[in-house]
Amino acid sequence: MPKSILEPRVTLVTLGVKDLPRSIRFYRDVVGWTTSAAETDPVAFFPLRGIVLGRFGERSLAADAKTRPRTGGFRGVTLAYNARSRAAVDRIFASLSERGVRIVKRPQVADWGGYSGYFADPDGHLWEVAHNSFWKLDRGGRALVT
Amino acid sequence: MPKSILEPRVTLVTLGVKDLPRSIRFYRDVVGWTTSAAETDPVAFFPLRGIVLGRFGERSLAADAKTRPRTGGFRGVTLAYNARSRAAVDRIFASLSERGVRIVKRPQVADWGGYSGYFADPDGHLWEVAHNSFWKLDRGGRALVT
Repeated sequence: MPKSILEPRVTLVTLGVKDLPRSIRFYRDVVGWTTSAAETDPVAFFPLRGIVLGRFGERSLAADAKTRPRTGGFRGVTLAYNARSRAAVDRIFASLSERGVRIVKRPQVADWGGYSGYFADPDGHLWEVAHNSFWKLDRGGRALVT
Repeated sequence: MPKSILEPRVTLVTLGVKDLPRSIRFYRDVVGWTTSAAETDPVAFFPLRGIVLGRFGERSLAADAKTRPRTGGFRGVTLAYNARSRAAVDRIFASLSERGVRIVKRPQVADWGGYSGYFADPDGHLWEVAHNSFWKLDRGGRALVT
């Protein structure tokens, strides 16, 4: 076994955004999460039970990582939220649709045996909402995966 | 307060990769994390204390999300690992360099008062490794952010 360089954990996932107040309103007012950030802050953090989801201007994020700004296209990263049942997935997509959220893929049976769809946030970050009967969730919603 | 559509949690973050066995070897043998996946599997999951970090072929991930494949450039998403001290950040970058990992930004004092650098995985996914004295970590390494 190699010595581990990093403990098996991630602190923060930061999504680059074009319009931070718009992204704050989406995650706070549409999705329904809480943040201590004001719409005038330069960065926003949403604590998600053990990890933090950040939002930061995409050009600033690129500069911070000493990387050229994004040119478009698929980001090559997706986020996923596992719900507790197929019915819960359907309810979530119904609520998202009611609130005018862009549904990228309607929930459907997946070839891996689950049930899943995708929605996009205002910057095109893709969220899968899935039911996966092979991954049990604990009471806090954390997947029990080995 | 609006009714929350999603509980405040994320189950899985999936990184699109060009070469899955290469990515498995990087996170398993270089970073030092564990996975039950074999290099011949079509997808790999690394459990990270409550969330799961997945690796999946980038074209397949785009197709699953009904999205066109990625064209390149900055992904607009970064991952961050908060270490417990500046010295720990330096030790991590020293170990990464020894193992031939591409360092994108050497650790340095950040304008927000912390100390941070970036490295890239074999697919160019960017990881920040930071010390942030404003965010306390619990014993399991989870940031206590409100």
